[in-house]
Amino acid sequence: MSEESGTSRRRWLGLTAALGAGLAGCKRSTPVADSGPGLLGKPVSAYGERSPFETAVRGLPDTRTPEVAASRTPLQDSCGILTPSSLHYERHHAGVPKIDPAGHRLLIHGMVDRPLIFTMDEIQRLPAISRIYFLECSGNSSGEWGEKTGRNAAQSHGLASCSEWTGVPLSVLLGEAGVQKRARWLIVEGADACKMQRSLPMEKAMDDALVAWGQNGEALRPEQGYPLRLVVPGWEGNISVKWLRRVMAVEEPYMVRDETSHYTDLMPDGTARVFTFMMEAKSLITFPSGGQKLTSPGYCQITGLAWSGRGRIERVEISTDDGRTWHDASLQEPRLPRAFTRFYFPWNWDGKEAVLQSRCIDQDGYVQPTKEALVEVRGLNSQYHYNGIKVWKVLADGSVSNA
Amino acid sequence: MSEESGTSRRRWLGLTAALGAGLAGCKRSTPVADSGPGLLGKPVSAYGERSPFETAVRGLPDTRTPEVAASRTPLQDSCGILTPSSLHYERHHAGVPKIDPAGHRLLIHGMVDRPLIFTMDEIQRLPAISRIYFLECSGNSSGEWGEKTGRNAAQSHGLASCSEWTGVPLSVLLGEAGVQKRARWLIVEGADACKMQRSLPMEKAMDDALVAWGQNGEALRPEQGYPLRLVVPGWEGNISVKWLRRVMAVEEPYMVRDETSHYTDLMPDGTARVFTFMMEAKSLITFPSGGQKLTSPGYCQITGLAWSGRGRIERVEISTDDGRTWHDASLQEPRLPRAFTRFYFPWNWDGKEAVLQSRCIDQDGYVQPTKEALVEVRGLNSQYHYNGIKVWKVLADGSVSNA
Repeated sequence: MSEESGTSRRRWLGLTAALGAGLAGCKRSTPVADSGPGLLGKPVSAYGERSPFETAVRGLPDTRTPEVAASRTPLQDSCGILTPSSLHYERHHAGVPKIDPAGHRLLIHGMVDRPLIFTMDEIQRLPAISRIYFLECSGNSSGEWGEKTGRNAAQSHGLASCSEWTGVPLSVLLGEAGVQKRARWLIVEGADACKMQRSLPMEKAMDDALVAWGQNGEALRPEQGYPLRLVVPGWEGNISVKWLRRVMAVEEPYMVRDETSHYTDLMPDGTARVFTFMMEAKSLITFPSGGQKLTSPGYCQITGLAWSGRGRIERVEISTDDGRTWHDASLQEPRLPRAFTRFYFPWNWDGKEAVLQSRCIDQDGYVQPTKEALVEVRGLNSQYHYNGIKVWKVLADGSVSNA
Repeated sequence: MSEESGTSRRRWLGLTAALGAGLAGCKRSTPVADSGPGLLGKPVSAYGERSPFETAVRGLPDTRTPEVAASRTPLQDSCGILTPSSLHYERHHAGVPKIDPAGHRLLIHGMVDRPLIFTMDEIQRLPAISRIYFLECSGNSSGEWGEKTGRNAAQSHGLASCSEWTGVPLSVLLGEAGVQKRARWLIVEGADACKMQRSLPMEKAMDDALVAWGQNGEALRPEQGYPLRLVVPGWEGNISVKWLRRVMAVEEPYMVRDETSHYTDLMPDGTARVFTFMMEAKSLITFPSGGQKLTSPGYCQITGLAWSGRGRIERVEISTDDGRTWHDASLQEPRLPRAFTRFYFPWNWDGKEAVLQSRCIDQDGYVQPTKEALVEVRGLNSQYHYNGIKVWKVLADGSVSNA
């Protein structure tokens, strides 16, 4: 512990002095203005709720079909690496079904030696593991391809969230069923009204896919697939089929609706990239970010989130001068593979206009591209898989906008 | 990947076969009985809620003063290492105050060079970090000292929970204020009606204490100290003062009510141990645990939680034969210091009576004691700091009780 003077036992960083006007109320003799609550507060309760002063909500679309729609995590209000389950992003293709877990079954069949049907009780007696993983819709940041970019973090990046998932490795269930050698793909199917289907390569299924029943310490939320969902770490969210009811082993992908008409990438030459499962490295400054306001110059810790479908985030760099210089941010440990990583960067805002950007590098050395570099390769037909650098502008009055 | 036969690409563990009657419905030709929801489900929503089929709640006391009381986390329903904020245990001494963050202030004064008052906005601009830590009331498991032990995990161990906390290291705030050399303790004070106070040694305050405003990705919950609390990792919960409003640097502890009349350990010789801050290593089987029922013999993954105020959990051992033999459980990674660690142990229940126990060993080599060993040292005057091994008995009908 360094000592600055004979009287202080910890180095004075001057952070609070730098806040200047922000600490105008700080005088040696200032008493605590309010002695605080003097009456008994609320009693203990069975199931807690957040403070009525807290108002962060998911961003909702302006649509006449909110059952076939998405809602967005307010990442501008996030802290740490976890997303509260109540604020986890949604993307439904036929609304949120109400499923009684007592009647729910998972069927494993197709090219297997021993077709199996599981009740929820049976699945929950099998070897479970817990992992913290992000999920991200491949349509996240689709608005960023155009000129009218997201005005706040929810609008631009809110189709990404991070939870602790608990469940049985899909490989365990497939092992019990005995997958036959010629089976190279799985058709995974949800119990929602559209019976969402996707084709999942056997290699990924056997690697780290999870049949999850727990989320952040309790049962999955209905919007996240209650009572059972697939979690396919690092891959586009749509393949992590919710309300999972069926896994069928097959030889070839089925080219179902949501891997052909949706979730493919139309390239400049008119061809379409299909099965672009991996969500590439991406980052976002969440504070200060669009729609927020700095009330005074001075110290302000820049913070945000980075993630990569390939594994761990190795490095995040910050620019506060419109990309002229870049500096390493510090990364919150533990950095978990395919999970959000929180980053921090110390900044003294001088009260002038500033352009803030973050870019991340993952364990494979992949560097998050600029929008321009991304468009050069992918063109402007793309709707999915945008991971360009996001730019925020701090104005002289402290307000922050999408630059 | 091992291969068992020419047709199966993953070793068949026989887990599901062992479940026997539990998989009675599993025949090759069994169709999925119910085609599932056929109508559009619920639309996207601003703030999600759990399924109406989920009923886990905090255990509430039978008391006429529920404002001065505790509620217990239903650990028997837990998964992973995180506690949902709505189910985090409570212990209030004057109820839950309703505090408007716009009016809340933190005063740092006493033997400091620069007394400071912070608004919430100012604190949230300072360098924050996030850490996953357990909190445990030193009165947790107090019923276990006697003959009538807890009938389920909430009753016996439910005054412990684990969250991701976000906030500013207390050392940063103290550094800004400039703590004087003679100041060896802090008096920390809450804004609730009883103005809860505790004396905190400066060394711990400078080490890892956190002034937290975030919990599990959102603002602290009111029951957990909204808008600001202390988190003193690994130490008895009471010193992690909620609704924190004042930190005063002093020379000596103040011997306040809750470190003299409460939270001390009366020893067999009539003396009292005071300032027994550290919560020693402890573990608990959460499944199968008291009040639960196994519906059939066969495979059943034993799982539970272990934690230690000293740091990481190094090892957890399981006995299924009334303590005659012990076997290593597997531990969920990452094992974080002063956080819950989830453990797993594969077990085939043969349908006969079985006595289940877990014991943990922490990074210092401290071994969780039996109840008998604990009583031998501490006697039976103690109300606090119980960390003996918990015993569950599985009866022949599959029901589980406190043995």
